[in-house]
Amino acid sequence: MHQRDAVFHLFYRSPPFGGRHVVAAGLETALQWLDGFALDDSDTDYLRTVTGNNGRPLFSDAFLEELRTLRLQIDLDAMPEGSIAFPHEPLLRVRGPLWQCQWIETALLNTINFQSLIATKASRVRDVAGTDHVLEFGLRRAQGIDGAMSASRAAYLGGCDATSNVLAGKTFGIPVRGTHAHSWVMSFDSELESFEAYAAAMPNNCIFLVDTYDTLQGVRHAIQVGKKLRQSGFQMVGIRLDSGDLTGLSIKARRLLDDAGFEDAAIVASNDLDENSMLQMKAAGSPIAVWGIGTKLVTAYDQPALGGVYKLAAIADANGELNPRIKLSETDIKTSVPGSLQVRRYFENGTAIGDIVYSDTIGPPETPLAASPSGIRDPHDLSAADSWEDLLIPILRRGKQVADLPTLVQSRERAAVERLRLNPRLRKLEDAPPYRFGLEMRLGKLRDEMIDAARTSTMSNSKTQETT
Amino acid sequence: MHQRDAVFHLFYRSPPFGGRHVVAAGLETALQWLDGFALDDSDTDYLRTVTGNNGRPLFSDAFLEELRTLRLQIDLDAMPEGSIAFPHEPLLRVRGPLWQCQWIETALLNTINFQSLIATKASRVRDVAGTDHVLEFGLRRAQGIDGAMSASRAAYLGGCDATSNVLAGKTFGIPVRGTHAHSWVMSFDSELESFEAYAAAMPNNCIFLVDTYDTLQGVRHAIQVGKKLRQSGFQMVGIRLDSGDLTGLSIKARRLLDDAGFEDAAIVASNDLDENSMLQMKAAGSPIAVWGIGTKLVTAYDQPALGGVYKLAAIADANGELNPRIKLSETDIKTSVPGSLQVRRYFENGTAIGDIVYSDTIGPPETPLAASPSGIRDPHDLSAADSWEDLLIPILRRGKQVADLPTLVQSRERAAVERLRLNPRLRKLEDAPPYRFGLEMRLGKLRDEMIDAARTSTMSNSKTQETT
Repeated sequence: MHQRDAVFHLFYRSPPFGGRHVVAAGLETALQWLDGFALDDSDTDYLRTVTGNNGRPLFSDAFLEELRTLRLQIDLDAMPEGSIAFPHEPLLRVRGPLWQCQWIETALLNTINFQSLIATKASRVRDVAGTDHVLEFGLRRAQGIDGAMSASRAAYLGGCDATSNVLAGKTFGIPVRGTHAHSWVMSFDSELESFEAYAAAMPNNCIFLVDTYDTLQGVRHAIQVGKKLRQSGFQMVGIRLDSGDLTGLSIKARRLLDDAGFEDAAIVASNDLDENSMLQMKAAGSPIAVWGIGTKLVTAYDQPALGGVYKLAAIADANGELNPRIKLSETDIKTSVPGSLQVRRYFENGTAIGDIVYSDTIGPPETPLAASPSGIRDPHDLSAADSWEDLLIPILRRGKQVADLPTLVQSRERAAVERLRLNPRLRKLEDAPPYRFGLEMRLGKLRDEMIDAARTSTMSNSKTQETT
Repeated sequence: MHQRDAVFHLFYRSPPFGGRHVVAAGLETALQWLDGFALDDSDTDYLRTVTGNNGRPLFSDAFLEELRTLRLQIDLDAMPEGSIAFPHEPLLRVRGPLWQCQWIETALLNTINFQSLIATKASRVRDVAGTDHVLEFGLRRAQGIDGAMSASRAAYLGGCDATSNVLAGKTFGIPVRGTHAHSWVMSFDSELESFEAYAAAMPNNCIFLVDTYDTLQGVRHAIQVGKKLRQSGFQMVGIRLDSGDLTGLSIKARRLLDDAGFEDAAIVASNDLDENSMLQMKAAGSPIAVWGIGTKLVTAYDQPALGGVYKLAAIADANGELNPRIKLSETDIKTSVPGSLQVRRYFENGTAIGDIVYSDTIGPPETPLAASPSGIRDPHDLSAADSWEDLLIPILRRGKQVADLPTLVQSRERAAVERLRLNPRLRKLEDAPPYRFGLEMRLGKLRDEMIDAARTSTMSNSKTQETT
């Protein structure tokens, strides 16, 4: 039975951060994991030692041998990284032998959940930043070194311009940017001396961190050194604020810089910032032009996990024919959508107006009308659409890659373009209107029938059980 | 100047989760990173390509060559993993050439911040669990695969009994435990059939996940299969609840199991749990005996970052003599403690009653009295103490390991023992009384003098600046 053909979808139910959507990310990382997938003798030797509560081994030798020689032969269809995914839409569809699909569940969830969460957070920061620069500064608060690498990758994909994580720069080709530490300043006898030494050592990267002792005094010291730099043919790039009332200090610092003829010197700010505090600071007139976003971005501080799940949606019967499967739940929203699914997005004048999820087996929508998936969303009419796109594209067939993957820069561009194809109201940080999402009519009908059948069967089972 | 002898401390200012302390973790992982530290040609080749905003290279060839041949020669003193650390106390003290201390800052923060955060969360869960079993189930929501590995390690160290992360089991020797997935149940034609198949395949690990369709019906199916198992000489280990009203369902499930003669079958629960929901469920009489704690543990959901920092505290002058350094801040609590520090913990009848931080250079406390570090905590008298321990122990000298590291199991035992040496009131999840923490009298005096001197100097500098 474990070899039966099965279909799983990876999707989420509730968008993070009070928004409406998720920016899909992590596919390339997941593919690297899948590509390297193989158990060696040390793995099966270890598994042989694993016992149940009673101290007896859990796994038979035959099973371990099957594991050791396992080579993944799955089909994978996925939304390319940088795509916009709405709730209940498959980001990934996996098809293959049941046990292989189950085997890779956790690795896919680990990779896609985290990177999509961070790319989504970064895209919100990008929306607020407008044309300002956004630097990802999260390495010291990320979850282990690989957690930080994933975070830097996803943050760049979602819209950051650069990272302070130099290994991510080397590995992924992300531009690297940074300033100096407070300890640089403290290791000299005076702040002024420390800025002079920094200017001598790094004349092409002079962003002075001005808040080690007294912030505005620090700005004045930066200006002093900036003037000398200019005389030597270099330019002070800017100053960085890292504590205190960033809005008030940035306004005062801007005035000091402008008065001294440093209109081009940028004000960089950091200190537990995210899109919400940025929005407030911009509303209050802050002239900050470069945002260093660290902890709250790489940990997705206000919602540190995306609840992505991976659910069986169809399995072959003994004759090899694929049958849809449904998981009920006491909350309607957790009841799954059966079948091998695809997502069709409809556009009107270049703007996405709604999505219809359909079953590959039943067929695509005959009309751009969507049924109401019970407990999920209202039915809707997308007949104003002038074009559509299917979002899941073939990535693996029987374990072999069949698509050229985009580069990280291309995925980042996709994230930017797809964001712009949304109705701007949908990009609001809060209280955006719901996006129109529904099931293709026949799929909706099938799902309702399967829910009824499963409930009836459960009830009659219960009854049988209780009377016996 | 970059070769001058310097001292840095890694510490935090504010304890997470409304608690009073942190369980130190991550040291072994950090040491592995330090041990493997070396830049190869590919690193320096990459760094050669890094430019400033103006497109000019940032690093000189001489500097890159110095980097390529750099071998760390630092001294490291640290609290062993599993130690209890209070705010402002160094978890790590690093001493060595200034640039080497600076070079490793971010890697140390990344490793220690995250693992200490998760170990602390796990120790809170452990406190509430009492003698119940706690399984760490977080892999699918952790931050990349390495993030998950660090999380599993730290969660075990902090008090979890096992993990569902099999690679962490293999790598760190953590016991692994798990149940089956919803997709196991869904891939069969009925729940009962799926439990029977599971019992046949895994007779030594029968924990049935009962909530795929109807939870109590699932419990009845588990009982049916449990009876057959018993006839074949095996035991059903338990059932698992993963949705719905866990308290209500667990009470009903317990009754069904007991009535059927399965008093020993455990009820395992999971679904976004943490120490707070566990406390409520226990108060409401839930008979859950095994807790699967995932997302909220491995992401530290309610406070997903520990704000650990790494600050310069002393640097040698041109004659090689170590001089203390201080960083001011607009908020007193962020003003650092100068000097090369050690932490002395005082005990009365085996219970920790307070800590005094002292400077290695000035010397240990002559009396168990502590000064009031301005902006930090009240002065206090620990003369009731009958013993004390210094918490930082030598780990590296000139880059070479000088201490035998404890095993992970030993660190886990330390965490358990140290927790018990705290006043039970300090282990309260919320509103615990402050722990008595202070600076050794002469160190306190030095710090106050340095604050005054730095403020005076800043003010007079400002004045000079403004009048010129």
